Amino acid sequence: MNSELAQMANSIRFLAADAIEKSKSGHPGMPLGMADVATVLFSKYIRLDPMHPHWFDRDRFVLSAGHGSMLLYSLLYLLGYPDIELDDLKNFRQLGAKTAGHPEYGHLAGIDMTTGPLGQGITSAAGMALAERIVAARWGEKVCSHYTYVFAGDGCLMEGISEEAISLAGTLGLNKLIVFWDNNNITIDGTVDLANATDQLKRFEAAGWNTIDIDGHNYGQIAAAIEQAQKSDRPTLIACKTTIGWGAPTKCGTSKCHGAPLGAEEVAAMRQNLNWDYAPFEVPDEILALWRNAGRRCADAYAAWSARAAAKGKAFADAIAGKLPCGWDKELNRLKETAIAEQTKVATRKASQMCLETIVPNIPEIVGGSADLAASNLTLTAVSKTVSKGDYNGNNVMYGIREHAMAAMMNGMALHGGIIPFGGTFFVFSDYMRPAMRLAALMGIRVIYVLTHDSIGVGEDGPTHQPVEHLASYRCMPNLLTFRPCDVVETAEAWQLALENAQTPSLLALSRQNLPLLRQSSAQNLSAKGGYIIRGDAQNRRATLIATGSEVSLAVEARDRLREEGIEVAVVSMPCTELFDAQPADYQEEVLGAAPRIAVEAASKYGWEKYVGLSGDIIGMDGFGASGPADQLYDYFGITVDEVVEAVKNCLK
Amino acid sequence: MNSELAQMANSIRFLAADAIEKSKSGHPGMPLGMADVATVLFSKYIRLDPMHPHWFDRDRFVLSAGHGSMLLYSLLYLLGYPDIELDDLKNFRQLGAKTAGHPEYGHLAGIDMTTGPLGQGITSAAGMALAERIVAARWGEKVCSHYTYVFAGDGCLMEGISEEAISLAGTLGLNKLIVFWDNNNITIDGTVDLANATDQLKRFEAAGWNTIDIDGHNYGQIAAAIEQAQKSDRPTLIACKTTIGWGAPTKCGTSKCHGAPLGAEEVAAMRQNLNWDYAPFEVPDEILALWRNAGRRCADAYAAWSARAAAKGKAFADAIAGKLPCGWDKELNRLKETAIAEQTKVATRKASQMCLETIVPNIPEIVGGSADLAASNLTLTAVSKTVSKGDYNGNNVMYGIREHAMAAMMNGMALHGGIIPFGGTFFVFSDYMRPAMRLAALMGIRVIYVLTHDSIGVGEDGPTHQPVEHLASYRCMPNLLTFRPCDVVETAEAWQLALENAQTPSLLALSRQNLPLLRQSSAQNLSAKGGYIIRGDAQNRRATLIATGSEVSLAVEARDRLREEGIEVAVVSMPCTELFDAQPADYQEEVLGAAPRIAVEAASKYGWEKYVGLSGDIIGMDGFGASGPADQLYDYFGITVDEVVEAVKNCLK
Repeated sequence: MNSELAQMANSIRFLAADAIEKSKSGHPGMPLGMADVATVLFSKYIRLDPMHPHWFDRDRFVLSAGHGSMLLYSLLYLLGYPDIELDDLKNFRQLGAKTAGHPEYGHLAGIDMTTGPLGQGITSAAGMALAERIVAARWGEKVCSHYTYVFAGDGCLMEGISEEAISLAGTLGLNKLIVFWDNNNITIDGTVDLANATDQLKRFEAAGWNTIDIDGHNYGQIAAAIEQAQKSDRPTLIACKTTIGWGAPTKCGTSKCHGAPLGAEEVAAMRQNLNWDYAPFEVPDEILALWRNAGRRCADAYAAWSARAAAKGKAFADAIAGKLPCGWDKELNRLKETAIAEQTKVATRKASQMCLETIVPNIPEIVGGSADLAASNLTLTAVSKTVSKGDYNGNNVMYGIREHAMAAMMNGMALHGGIIPFGGTFFVFSDYMRPAMRLAALMGIRVIYVLTHDSIGVGEDGPTHQPVEHLASYRCMPNLLTFRPCDVVETAEAWQLALENAQTPSLLALSRQNLPLLRQSSAQNLSAKGGYIIRGDAQNRRATLIATGSEVSLAVEARDRLREEGIEVAVVSMPCTELFDAQPADYQEEVLGAAPRIAVEAASKYGWEKYVGLSGDIIGMDGFGASGPADQLYDYFGITVDEVVEAVKNCLK
Repeated sequence: MNSELAQMANSIRFLAADAIEKSKSGHPGMPLGMADVATVLFSKYIRLDPMHPHWFDRDRFVLSAGHGSMLLYSLLYLLGYPDIELDDLKNFRQLGAKTAGHPEYGHLAGIDMTTGPLGQGITSAAGMALAERIVAARWGEKVCSHYTYVFAGDGCLMEGISEEAISLAGTLGLNKLIVFWDNNNITIDGTVDLANATDQLKRFEAAGWNTIDIDGHNYGQIAAAIEQAQKSDRPTLIACKTTIGWGAPTKCGTSKCHGAPLGAEEVAAMRQNLNWDYAPFEVPDEILALWRNAGRRCADAYAAWSARAAAKGKAFADAIAGKLPCGWDKELNRLKETAIAEQTKVATRKASQMCLETIVPNIPEIVGGSADLAASNLTLTAVSKTVSKGDYNGNNVMYGIREHAMAAMMNGMALHGGIIPFGGTFFVFSDYMRPAMRLAALMGIRVIYVLTHDSIGVGEDGPTHQPVEHLASYRCMPNLLTFRPCDVVETAEAWQLALENAQTPSLLALSRQNLPLLRQSSAQNLSAKGGYIIRGDAQNRRATLIATGSEVSLAVEARDRLREEGIEVAVVSMPCTELFDAQPADYQEEVLGAAPRIAVEAASKYGWEKYVGLSGDIIGMDGFGASGPADQLYDYFGITVDEVVEAVKNCLK
């Protein structure tokens, strides 16, 4: 038995080494070092079915140390995933290949998330484990009860985000989260102890984890650890003492085998060392058969699950597919109408909460939360119920002061399915979440960020709390929708678009301060076009004011004043530049017009030339904000009706 | 004695409560809760001299929980810092006041760093503690031997960056770092245990810390803990069990007193509760005298230190002032000349290392490092020596896989003085450092980021490792210089400018791949103007190509090809848009010219309209990158000489 496992592990090792050799780039150290652990886990324990890679109740596997991608690709091939063939392994790291340098979600069935940036995987896995518990609480263990397995390296554990993940996973008691730590004492720069003397077992125990310390090359210990972990009432860390590059005779145990091909000579020596008398990419039939059998282990379980899932009906199928219920936004549309009728003047963060009061009861999949700012971000609703250890029947997560974990866990929840996550913090602190937000954009998943206190309107808390460059910094990020609505109607529209764009994360930048109701009709979701004329006579305009969020009302006021002076201007509300950019050129021209253009936004001016050109003007911020009452700050930084009026007159000179 | 201390502590409490009441905003909970700890520390132990607030060998104090700013302002006033008067407290949080909502470095002598974004303070403090050890190793304990004290809240300890800080501080044995944890079990959303069940003492012990658990309202325990911490051979966490808002009769112990004024009624009741029969902002003479005496405690120590420091001569004075040694860049200038003579073709990351080989030996204050990518970022030189626990006589730090801590610790090192820090990682992972980079920009300190692998030129590692939006995302950040040099000469110029701009952090975005030498002369630092014509006949140009970094050579090649076809174009190299924007308008016009403009950068197009206008063209990236050989990626994404030539011809149609 052990010799079979050893052969199976070696088949991973050689596929990895050969593919990396062929592509002349890649990371052999981890696939070789963790091949034994992977073999035990994937041949005996993990629940998956290569024929149904998207099986909702499969165990999730996150290769947090994403550079070891060849480990995962080898496994998927060996287990018999139809989506991957030997040629894909031979094309490792080539342009257009499914087998990218790091595992890319969506490129290949069986990749549960994109990894590479360290620490993200372990944290998103915590999100998956939480999603599993929430869905189980809602729909029953019969259709949702699985483990989430993680392979993490020293890098993942050194990244700060991992502490956020493990402390929250411990607090929430996510006992079906099982992390294998590739404890090889090697990082790129040398041995780990040079940079980290932390007692990791003790650290995880402090966070309420079950810990197991094993020899990562001992099959019996690996199996026993998994079985113990599966029964634990706490999340489990299995510290696997391994030799990086195990099998490579001269390079194993050193950083030399971490991130570069072993070299033809070393691979040849490794073949000798491990008695592997097969050509590159050749897996002997009997070993492949063992793997393919392992891949078929759970076919019956899948069939049984399918029957149970079918019994749950369409509601369950839609929920796990992320389909929004029919008529989910009926109340939301009514809210817009009421807001117009009553001229509701609230902060857009409050408007967002009003929206959530209509959305959350109608979309049970929504799970909200905030990073300890619920009362400021206004993320709670009348039907919000916070999940806690042992009670996952809720729809709100108290993430604590852990913005980064919040964002990364939301990625995991969205990837898991059955959950549509949103989370709030101050806009300025979105900086802490940025690596996870980038991954959401890259993976194309529906995660919604509720980012309040979106400008110098923050006031007295001062420049550390006042976003200035953030809008521009997200507008330049691909596949992320940045909304900055101006009133209740636009806020509701932003929520609609954020929820409907299932392959794009969205952020809502929301004001702290009250804003007047500007929209006169809600018949059409005008924010869907990104920008539109909200006031003024487009034909006869002598200038166009382009504004977002809190500055739209300021532009409208300036327009009214100019009109009294006989100067007709149009005001464009531009809640989402990305959607505007996606419109046909003639629509864009029609909205922006030929007259001089002036942008107004209480943020960095950077990027507005795209709309106003070199001859236009931009009223915005040149530096950081300051501490003081918000209205005084607007005056101090010259973002006022007077300045806008003045700028228009200057343009017309 | 205890009653004196209690009165002193209450003077902090009422100044804080009254100032917050007057400003109608602020955070009373922490100043009230930590007043006792602060009183013992500041009246008996901390080494400072209000008359010499910049005393190099003072103990550093970092209020990591920066929202408790009134604690610090009260202390500075009570101790007699001339820079702060009672009126400043009365102006708390008003526009232009020194007493901003959160402590702002540079606004008031005695503020050792800007805090507010949680977790930054404790981490920068670790940097200060490391700087102290390095300077002590270099110049002797007689002129540098002090403690670094931190007040941290639950938020600071939940932020992931804190784990990076404590694990590295433990590994490096920074035993003069003493952290007081305001263990009040309250965060904004409620009690801490709702979101965090971590055993903090155990967690710190796992990282190699000394831990002490005390009643934060017991003067004897506080004093004993400080004395024990001062003698520890490990960094120390003093867990101070406190009551948030101590003294406020109905709101203490709850999140209600965290972030809002107590209200007139509660403050009145608190006066009664604590027998404080004084008017708002009134500190009775005898209590003020106790404080002022405490402020004078170290006057003799300062004088003695001054004599010792003077004995070290001008070199020490210059070192702690951050002055660059005369002629420091002589060799660097020679490197440029040699590179031109030899047409050195190297990656700019390699060019950066060549620069460092000339810089590091000539500026002993430089301390480099990387986040486990030394061999990729090329941050080591022949004279680099890595510091380690017990041996701080070095100039390189192995930060481990902790980008965020690296950036925040560099902030602390720069703030400490005697050190000019630089640190490297992959450009794409600068996302992890962003909150600390923002603070560096806000504080205006000299921190240098060596960010290599700056585009799709990364190649096979794929989109998780390929920065696309990063250049734009930093160009919009105020007070940060973003350099993307095109060859050895520009890389050397960028290093010169980064080092000479002592009040601005700088980042160097450097290529993985080799780039040809383009500059024909190094007589003048042309990068100082941000952008300049590197090729072509400005007078007769029919188009202007604007490029940065690796794309400058591509633009130059396109220019050569167009020239053969009789089309004269000029090429502008734009290594630093921020410096270009700071030039006089006529210089900018002279460089950019009136002919059509085309920007070329292997990055998000966002922001380039600023230079090319609405009629220009931008050759860049629209989405994320991909995994594949770098040259194929350039072709695939259409960033080629052909495309540039084509774009010029289109413009001329």
